[in-house]
Amino acid sequence: MDSSLSKLKGFREFYPEEMESRRLVFNKMRDTSIRFNFREIDAPSVENFEIFRKKSGDEIINQTFSFLDKAGRHVTLIPEITPVVARMVSNVKNVPMPQKWFSIPKLWRYEEPQSGRLREFYQYNADIFGSSSVYSDSEIIILSQSILNDLGLRNKYTTRISDRYLAENILKSEGIENVDEIFKIIDKMEKVGREKIKEMLSGIAGEDRASRIMEIFSLSGKFDEISGKIEYSERMEYIGRLNDILKDMDCGNYMFDFSIVRGLAYYTGIVFETHDYKREFRAVLGGGRYDRLTEMFGSHIPAVGFGMGDAVLELLMRRENVWPGPKRNLDFFVVIIGNYITEGLRLVKMLRENGFSADYDPDFRSVQKQMKMAEREGARFSLIMGEEELKNNTVTMKDMDSGVQNKIGMDDLIQKLRKYNLPKNHFHS
Amino acid sequence: MDSSLSKLKGFREFYPEEMESRRLVFNKMRDTSIRFNFREIDAPSVENFEIFRKKSGDEIINQTFSFLDKAGRHVTLIPEITPVVARMVSNVKNVPMPQKWFSIPKLWRYEEPQSGRLREFYQYNADIFGSSSVYSDSEIIILSQSILNDLGLRNKYTTRISDRYLAENILKSEGIENVDEIFKIIDKMEKVGREKIKEMLSGIAGEDRASRIMEIFSLSGKFDEISGKIEYSERMEYIGRLNDILKDMDCGNYMFDFSIVRGLAYYTGIVFETHDYKREFRAVLGGGRYDRLTEMFGSHIPAVGFGMGDAVLELLMRRENVWPGPKRNLDFFVVIIGNYITEGLRLVKMLRENGFSADYDPDFRSVQKQMKMAEREGARFSLIMGEEELKNNTVTMKDMDSGVQNKIGMDDLIQKLRKYNLPKNHFHS
Repeated sequence: MDSSLSKLKGFREFYPEEMESRRLVFNKMRDTSIRFNFREIDAPSVENFEIFRKKSGDEIINQTFSFLDKAGRHVTLIPEITPVVARMVSNVKNVPMPQKWFSIPKLWRYEEPQSGRLREFYQYNADIFGSSSVYSDSEIIILSQSILNDLGLRNKYTTRISDRYLAENILKSEGIENVDEIFKIIDKMEKVGREKIKEMLSGIAGEDRASRIMEIFSLSGKFDEISGKIEYSERMEYIGRLNDILKDMDCGNYMFDFSIVRGLAYYTGIVFETHDYKREFRAVLGGGRYDRLTEMFGSHIPAVGFGMGDAVLELLMRRENVWPGPKRNLDFFVVIIGNYITEGLRLVKMLRENGFSADYDPDFRSVQKQMKMAEREGARFSLIMGEEELKNNTVTMKDMDSGVQNKIGMDDLIQKLRKYNLPKNHFHS
Repeated sequence: MDSSLSKLKGFREFYPEEMESRRLVFNKMRDTSIRFNFREIDAPSVENFEIFRKKSGDEIINQTFSFLDKAGRHVTLIPEITPVVARMVSNVKNVPMPQKWFSIPKLWRYEEPQSGRLREFYQYNADIFGSSSVYSDSEIIILSQSILNDLGLRNKYTTRISDRYLAENILKSEGIENVDEIFKIIDKMEKVGREKIKEMLSGIAGEDRASRIMEIFSLSGKFDEISGKIEYSERMEYIGRLNDILKDMDCGNYMFDFSIVRGLAYYTGIVFETHDYKREFRAVLGGGRYDRLTEMFGSHIPAVGFGMGDAVLELLMRRENVWPGPKRNLDFFVVIIGNYITEGLRLVKMLRENGFSADYDPDFRSVQKQMKMAEREGARFSLIMGEEELKNNTVTMKDMDSGVQNKIGMDDLIQKLRKYNLPKNHFHS
């Protein structure tokens, strides 16, 4: 095939089996979100580039699919949804707060594709707008863990929590002005190693301060293990309250880790990242509080949220054998004999109209071939309408699992079929 | 707000109420598709532009969001999914046929936004690959009508069916070589009027032939009304069989209309369009047979399918008052008193873990304000945990519709709440 007709690198096609698995995963995410009273929203996939430049700085242009549209506007495929959602919440007047929203948009980033990182991916997002409460911070963390639990990943992950507000104050107390510069360095800790980080910090802050900064940003563990080592007590009290709530709610699998700063400049309070417990993959999800983002849209709405891409999640779920397999959706395959096509199609129609899924061979090949088709389509039962059956006003029903065949009278057929308790809403269950 | 931060023209934001309605509509489409044994797929949103140029010609560049990516590739946001799906089916080897696939992608077209036409929209698509049978043609038409019926639009539409194969043969028998040129003119009939069309045809084919062409392409009505007026009998027999199937399956709301040619060059057999019965809007859906499209990917897989955008569909459903309203998803709002936050949050957690949706006020304002929040969140019940309740190991439950209050013992609370038959799967039902 001509390569100019090929799929682009870093993009995915989803064939039925892959798509059905993904649909089940997305539905579980929706279900958990709705139990937490989050409501789904959706936003444009193309936006003015300026929104993302304003939030993340000029360098983001290299990581986006941005271009000039036919009217000369500098637009981009959205690399994240957060600023778009922030605009949406800023634009509604008199909306009661808090607002709890989630979405599962496609996002695009122009990065070199690698394991868990694609150019096009889905990302689950959840945010609480309009509440500064520590109980909204805990709600977001608990939601993120509940989604993983509901997907079958209970105890297969660790959430690392830190606090940008605290970190900023510690750096400022060390006399450091450009805290974002330091955060960007700390954020690379895992990637480049402690030695290199210390070197970089020394270059900016001098060796002594670099040592102290390293010490603080290396603290990790349970709250009681680290709380005595941090001086800025007012904020530590806040973090202690968050810790109390998470403990009271039986949240396992979390710890405090001050090396988590998340590079993005817009965080203003708690930040967190969740990795699989083996740390084999990059973070499966991450988020935090960003109380000042809506300012670019002329609002002052506090916010806390997180995002979770589908690529790392799938790697982790597959490793743990909880990625759902495709499910059988076909209740009946109707085997139709050439002379009785109308009768056969009417049966198909009746089944479908009564909520069952049903199919047939549009080419009406031999009974043997039709039975084979019933099998490969994963039908639960086949229904055979032959000459004899029609004469006796019956249909032969074959259980495709056991191979057992039965003759069933056509009168009240639907009522009789209902007792097999076939899924009513195939797509959902 | 700075206009460079605004939403782009022709794009939509979906706030929770709008999104929840749309989700219900999409779920119904999925449900109907699955009853017909169609399986969901998904495809990249960005593709090499060449795919669409090859299918539709150079002029499509003016109607797409196409651009050079950072590596200099000419890529585009997909304006339709059909050729991408055709590539997908071409690339799997040894797949048993037929394959019945559907999808609901976002699509993008650079056109002037107007009623029912946007720059970004969702489009439901369904295709049957690998079957040339007239029973696949009928299956696709019946599916398209069943989706409309299941969405509450029974008898609110008319499907107009024609045949490109027949039309081509008629034109060729008139000695016309460039049939696509004629189809493009006929396709404008409704837009520019009969007089203008006749003039354009005369310019190409001469006045006599233009008259005969006009006569044939103006034929419309029931099969019996038009069949005698067409000479090319072999193909009319095929169309007659399609008519018989649709009649046998009690399909109402269809007719034959030879003015339907659908401009796109790639159709090779039946073509159809469905309009609302008042013809107030542009077509709600359209499709047909395209047996040669996979040739560009080196395959020879016959195909028939249709597409339905969400914009006209929404206009029609709203006009007919069947566009679903947002539904109540919140089962319980827990009113929590400041001294008993842990107890309150534990109740919320227990409810959520048992499949109910539950929420609370993260700021624990006054009971009055929390009750107001329960109301605006549309809670079915509020559960009040006060001092007295806790002392007696009870909770006060208020029916938010009737206002009736009851005290319920905390023992076996979940069992007691189950009898209220609250939706188990909020998002689905």
